[in-house]
Order: sequence, then structure tokens, then C-alpha cells
Amino acid sequence: MGKLFVVGVGPGGIDLISERGVLAIKKSNLICGYKRYVELITDLINGKEIFTNSMKGEMERVKFAINRAKRGDTVSLVCGGDASLYSLASLVFEMSDGFENIEVIPGITAAMAASAKLGAPICEDIVFLSLSDLLTPWKVIEKRVDAINFGDFVTAIYNPRSKKRKDYLKFVLEKFYQERGDLICGVVKNCEREDEEVKIWRISEFEYDFVDMSTIIIVGNTKTYLENDKMITPRGYLDKYKEFNVQSSGFKV
Amino acid sequence: MGKLFVVGVGPGGIDLISERGVLAIKKSNLICGYKRYVELITDLINGKEIFTNSMKGEMERVKFAINRAKRGDTVSLVCGGDASLYSLASLVFEMSDGFENIEVIPGITAAMAASAKLGAPICEDIVFLSLSDLLTPWKVIEKRVDAINFGDFVTAIYNPRSKKRKDYLKFVLEKFYQERGDLICGVVKNCEREDEEVKIWRISEFEYDFVDMSTIIIVGNTKTYLENDKMITPRGYLDKYKEFNVQSSGFKV
Ligand SMILES: C[S@@+](CC[C@H](N)C(=O)[O-])C[C@H]1O[C@@H](n2cnc3c(N)ncnc32)[C@H](O)[C@@H]1O
Ligand SMILES: C[S@@+](CC[C@H](N)C(=O)[O-])C[C@H]1O[C@@H](n2cnc3c(N)ncnc32)[C@H](O)[C@@H]1O
Repeated sequence: MGKLFVVGVGPGGIDLISERGVLAIKKSNLICGYKRYVELITDLINGKEIFTNSMKGEMERVKFAINRAKRGDTVSLVCGGDASLYSLASLVFEMSDGFENIEVIPGITAAMAASAKLGAPICEDIVFLSLSDLLTPWKVIEKRVDAINFGDFVTAIYNPRSKKRKDYLKFVLEKFYQERGDLICGVVKNCEREDEEVKIWRISEFEYDFVDMSTIIIVGNTKTYLENDKMITPRGYLDKYKEFNVQSSGFKV
Repeated sequence: MGKLFVVGVGPGGIDLISERGVLAIKKSNLICGYKRYVELITDLINGKEIFTNSMKGEMERVKFAINRAKRGDTVSLVCGGDASLYSLASLVFEMSDGFENIEVIPGITAAMAASAKLGAPICEDIVFLSLSDLLTPWKVIEKRVDAINFGDFVTAIYNPRSKKRKDYLKFVLEKFYQERGDLICGVVKNCEREDEEVKIWRISEFEYDFVDMSTIIIVGNTKTYLENDKMITPRGYLDKYKEFNVQSSGFKV
């Protein structure tokens, strides 16, 4: 019987894939994936059969991977970042049609990789929000923006832009501004890839034209601050331990 | 000059750490971490100097790691899951006191690892919520629960229980039930560790005593469903492509 691995390969090159992910890819005789992601891991897949197609081809890709696994192949369906988040794992189960030998291997998602580049903006409760209204109706996205403001969450914005929707990001950041003021935005384009670019802007100085589909934006909450060009969301240790004067093993704040 | 790596080592054993993380640990002469996490990676750190302490010792641990890096050591501060989320990266920057040779290496967070175990409950917009009111005031947590209901987000609940707060989780799930009905909850204890346990319950049948501090709970949104014991949040591809009758390369739905 064949096997289908759904592998999260992380945001960029090979050195942010887990060992388990690397092994699954090595064991596979067929690699399926979106063209760009497959290119990022060419060193790993030399000599293997490769099926790539474009971003709109998800269903075809998944169907192909499942069918070949059904016929006895060991297949890795590679996904950028994590294998589930805004990615293909759920579609695989939806289309599996009785085939059960499926293993999802999680990966480092773009938000965590971007956070590491920016300092530590992700530390506290966070929302991952996609602006792709191809799959989520705009009304739902709007509601979620209100919810984020209400909860004062840090927000990682995925899929911030495509040709059809240039203004969504602006709409969202302006809504944040209205309710929570001039929040700090960490912007990472091509994170962990060649041409990586990192920017930190306030909402009021945000350069919308910079953003493309390979960009992720981490918007801080009202507690997030900048120090030495690092974007930091405090987790509250310093305050808390001062407040209660808790000292561990004689360590003094 | 010394160097401080803040390394996300993933939820469990060595094979979910990235190659970059493994290399950083190998390069380090001193490993600092919470006892349990360090035990999970003993195979990697044989023969190195090790500084471990308990969960309440975060500030002492971070201070120690920074001081030793300042004095010329190569230090890895290992964090379970990702290095930023509910973890130490932000405290490191807050306490760095001018020391700049810090590199954060992101990791696979518990929510993504648990999602892979459960099927694909994480697929769509999601909130990561901690119930630790040691660091976040309960009033803020309550507000965020309302926000999550309003936005109908999938939710990953971290830090669901300690001795002091047995009822918080129940409070949160009951709030979800009131507003959104009997949602599906995926519960993973000791994910990717020995004694891993996976449960899928509706809120109405939730067994609160099962939950401990090494448990994460993924609560679906109103679209999440169960099929063949897999918890799946649809991303909307199937609906969308049917609706518009989009076909890529002749593939038929
Ligand atoms: C379809 S989603 C896939 C997300 C992926 N599964 C993950 O967990 O990171 C694509 C979006 O993720 C973000 N993204 C993925 N990789 C990225 C990278 N290397 N740099 C910046 N953003 C990235 C961008 O916002 C992009 O529009
Ligand atoms: C202080 S937080 C650390 C989170 C970590 N930095 C991450 O990204 O996964 C600890 C909480 O994470 C969750 N957690 C971490 N590792 C886990 C595992 N292996 N299995 C289940 N839950 C885990 C639990 O909810 C636990 O109470």
C-alpha cells in the first residue's frame, strides 16, 4: 500500500524543515507541490519524480497525489510553512475518498519565522487572519477585524494582497488605527528566502505598495513596543514579578 | 564575543526540530532550559554544560543565559514549541541590557503539531489563547473569549490548567457553547511525547479532569466537522470551485 505525507516545509530553505519532514521527502518517490515551494527544496528532491502546478491548481495537485498513493507510490505533498494553516491538509482529508494512509507533518509557519526576524512580536495571544476572500467571504473577514480590535490581539496577516484586492489591507489597518491607534507593524517579504526584506512601520507610515503575496505582516497589540529596532510584545514577566516581588532561587530583579 | 540562540525545539522529540535549531544546539557549549524540555533532547546535548530550572524560574534562566553569552559562551536557550509564542524570546530582548548577538530560531508550535494529530482542524483563521492568568489578567481573557465567539474563530487553547485554575477552561467552553453551540474539541496531551493521548469530544461531553498543563485543546469553528475520526475545518476549496465551476488543467470536481 502506498503512503501520502503532507509535509510542512517551513517558510524558506531546507534548514527550517524538521528532520521528520526531510526523511518523509527522502522516502518518497513522488513529490507534489506548488512550483515555488518545490523550487526552494530542490537539493532534497534531486532525481525524484516531481509534479508541480500553479497556485490555482490545488485540487488537481491533491487529487493527483492521492491517486498515486492509492496506486502504491510513496508521495510527499509539500506545503510552504505549516501543512495545515491556509494549506492543503484539510483538502487532502476532504478528497481522500477512503484512502487512509495519510500522515501530516507539521511545519514552521510564516508568522513564527517572521516573528523571529522582527524581534519577538508574537509572544502573547494572537490571531492569524487571511485576507484572501477567494475562500473566506469578505463579510466574515470584516467581522473578524472587529473581533481582533475588541480583544486587542496581536495579528499575523497572511495573504495580504493580490491583483484583485489591493485595498483590503489598507481597510484592515485603518480599522485597527481607528480603534487602537498607531500600532506597530512588522512586515517581512520573502521571509527566509533570497531577497528577504524586513520593515517596521507604524500604521500611519505604512507603504502599501511594498506588500506582495509573499509578504506577511505582524501587527502588534497596544502593548507592543520598539527597542533597538526590535519589535517586542511583552509577556508580562517583568511586571508580574515586580508586582508580587516573586523571586526564584534568590534571583533579584 | 559570545552568542545567544533562542531555539524553538518543537513539541516533543528531536525529529521535529529544524536543522538550524539542531546546529545551534550542537554549536553551543551551554544549554539552558526548563527541565522537561531539556530532558526531551538529551541525545543532542550529551557532554555539554546544562543549566535547568523549574517553570517559575524563567527570569533567572534568561539572565543566566545572557550573562554567560556576554562573557563569551555560545549558549542555546531552548524553548518548547516555538521560541516566541508564550515563550522566552521577548523576555530575552527585554533583559538583554545591550547585548545584541541574539538569534531567535523559530519552531513548530504545539497547536500545529496537535492539528496534525487530529486531522486538519487548523486550516482557517485561528486564535491562540492562553488561560494562564499569571501573566494575562482574567478580565482580558474574558474579553478575548467574547471576541472569539464574535469572529467564529478556530481556537487553540494553551496553558489550559494549573492547580489554581481548574474552572477557567470550563468557563471558556461554556461561553463558546452558549454562542456557537456544541463545537468539536480536539484534545492532545503530551503531543509528540511518550504517553501522548488524543481525544475528540463535543463541548457537552468534555472530560475536564483529563486536562493537565501538558495538554492543548483545539476548538473548531461552526464549520468544523468530524469524518472517520478526523477533525476537519474546511478551507472552502470544494465549495468555491463548485460554485464558480473553476477547473484547472481539465480536472473535474
Ligand atoms: C496560502 S498561505 C500559506 C501559509 C503557510 N501554510 C504557512 O504556514 O506559512 C500563503 C501566505 O503565507 C505567507 N507566507 C508564506 N511564506 C512566506 C514567506 N516565506 N515570507 C513571507 N510570507 C510568507 C504570505 O502572507 C502568503 O501570502
Ligand atoms: C508556556 S506554553 C509554551 C508554548 C510553546 N512555546 C509552543 O509554541 O508550543 C505551554 C503550553 O503549551 C502547550 N503545549 C506545549 N507543548 C505541548 C505538547 N507537547 N503537548 C500538548 N500541549 C503542549 C500546553 O498547553 C502548555 O500548557
